[in-house]
Amino acid sequence: MDPPPAHGPIRVVLARPSHPGNVGAAARAMKTMGFTDLRLVAPRRAPDDEARALAAGGGEVLASARTVGAIAEALEGTVLAAGFSARGRDLSHPLRTLRHAAPDILAAAREGPVALVFGNETSGLTNEEMGHCRLQVAIPADPAYSSLNLAAAVQVACYEIATAAASFAPPQVSDRMPATTQDIEALFAHWEAAMVESGYLDPANPGRLMERLRRMIARAGLERSEAKALRGMLAAFEARMRR
Amino acid sequence: MDPPPAHGPIRVVLARPSHPGNVGAAARAMKTMGFTDLRLVAPRRAPDDEARALAAGGGEVLASARTVGAIAEALEGTVLAAGFSARGRDLSHPLRTLRHAAPDILAAAREGPVALVFGNETSGLTNEEMGHCRLQVAIPADPAYSSLNLAAAVQVACYEIATAAASFAPPQVSDRMPATTQDIEALFAHWEAAMVESGYLDPANPGRLMERLRRMIARAGLERSEAKALRGMLAAFEARMRR
Repeated sequence: MDPPPAHGPIRVVLARPSHPGNVGAAARAMKTMGFTDLRLVAPRRAPDDEARALAAGGGEVLASARTVGAIAEALEGTVLAAGFSARGRDLSHPLRTLRHAAPDILAAAREGPVALVFGNETSGLTNEEMGHCRLQVAIPADPAYSSLNLAAAVQVACYEIATAAASFAPPQVSDRMPATTQDIEALFAHWEAAMVESGYLDPANPGRLMERLRRMIARAGLERSEAKALRGMLAAFEARMRR
Repeated sequence: MDPPPAHGPIRVVLARPSHPGNVGAAARAMKTMGFTDLRLVAPRRAPDDEARALAAGGGEVLASARTVGAIAEALEGTVLAAGFSARGRDLSHPLRTLRHAAPDILAAAREGPVALVFGNETSGLTNEEMGHCRLQVAIPADPAYSSLNLAAAVQVACYEIATAAASFAPPQVSDRMPATTQDIEALFAHWEAAMVESGYLDPANPGRLMERLRRMIARAGLERSEAKALRGMLAAFEARMRR
C-alpha cells in the first residue's frame, strides 16, 4: 500500500499578481512537480488567453484556480503558510532558506494543508501579507540581482519540495494539533477587541502592535489548545473589565 | 584568500531555441543565480525586444550571449557537458538526477569550463546533440506532465548548482534583541497575577496553564520589545479591571 504523495495538500497562493502570463506559467510549473491547488488573491487581471497559453499542460491547474479577495481566505484551513521573500524585515520571522524549510513544510503537510505564498511580481509580499505567514522562506540568489521571475520562483519552490518529498522519511507522529488559520484569525480578532476595550490599543492610532503580536504567535507555531486557552483568558479579562 | 566562485566557469548552452522570450527569461534565471556565460546554438530567431524585456536584470547576460552555428562550437574548451533531458535513450548515457549530478558538475568546474546544455522547447535535445554530452541530467518531474518551460528548467538547474556550491551566504535575519531571563520571568509573574485577578486562573487549582504558556512563549523565542508590549497590555487589562 503506497502512502499518498507527501505534497498532496500543498497549495500555491499568488498574492496580487499583475500579469496573467505569470499566473499561467506558475500553473505549468506547479503541474510539472505534481502540485495542483492554485489560489489567486486579488489578481490585477483575471486569467486570460495569454495565461492559458503559458499554462500549457498546466491548463487544468489554471482553470481550477480559486480567486479570493483577501489573503486570509486563501489560507483557510492551512496549518502552515510559508511566505517567500528574501527581504529582511523589521519584525523578525523565522527565516529559512528553501532547502532548509522543505522538510518542515513536508512535515506540516502531514498534519494539514500548507500554503506556499508568493507576492506581487514587483513589490513582493507586503508586511501585512507576511504577517499571515508563519515562516519566511528565501530562495538564495545572487545579491547583485536576486529577482527571480514569479513563475520561476514557483518552479524552484515546487521542485525543491517535490525533491525533498522523494527522500522524505515520515517523522515520528506527534500528538500536536496545530491551530488552523481560522483559529488564529479568531484569536487575533478577539485579542484586538479586548485590547481596544482595555484602552491599550487605540484603534485610531494602532501602530504596529497587531503586526508584532502576529509575528510572535507565528514564531510560536500555535497549537489549537493554546489558541483556545488564550481566548479563554481574553474572555475572562473582558468579563471582569465589564463588571 | 577567497577561492573564486565554484560556478564561475559554468556556461549555459541553449540548442535551437524557438522563442526569443524564452532565451531572455533564461538569461534572467541565470543571472539570479550568478551565472553569466550564455551560448545559443542556431536559435530560430535572434534575441529581440521580447527577449530583452524578459531578461530584465539579466540584460547583460543576454547582450553578451554568443551565437554559434553548431553545438560543438558552443562546447569548445569545456571539460564536461551535461545534457538536460528526462527522456530515456537507446544509447545509454550516465543518467543522473540533477541533485545527484550537481556535485559532479561542481567538481568538474574546478578543472575547467562546464556546459549545461538544454534542447529545443518542443523537441528537447536530439540524440546527436546528446552525443556531444558526457552526462545526461534529469530534473525529476511528474510523469503525468514532465515538460518544464525552458527558462524554468534553466532556473532550477542554476538554483540546484548554486545551492550545491553554497556560494551564497544565508540571508540575515534582522537585528533581534532577545528578551532576558529576567524579562521572561517578570512577564510570567505579571501574566499569572492578571489571570488570577480576572478569575481565569484559580491559584488553588492552577492546572497546567502556566506550563502551557511557558512552552508557547519558549517556542516563540521572545524579543525584548515583545515582552514589554505584553506587559503593557496586561497592565492595561489590570487597570481596567480595577475601575
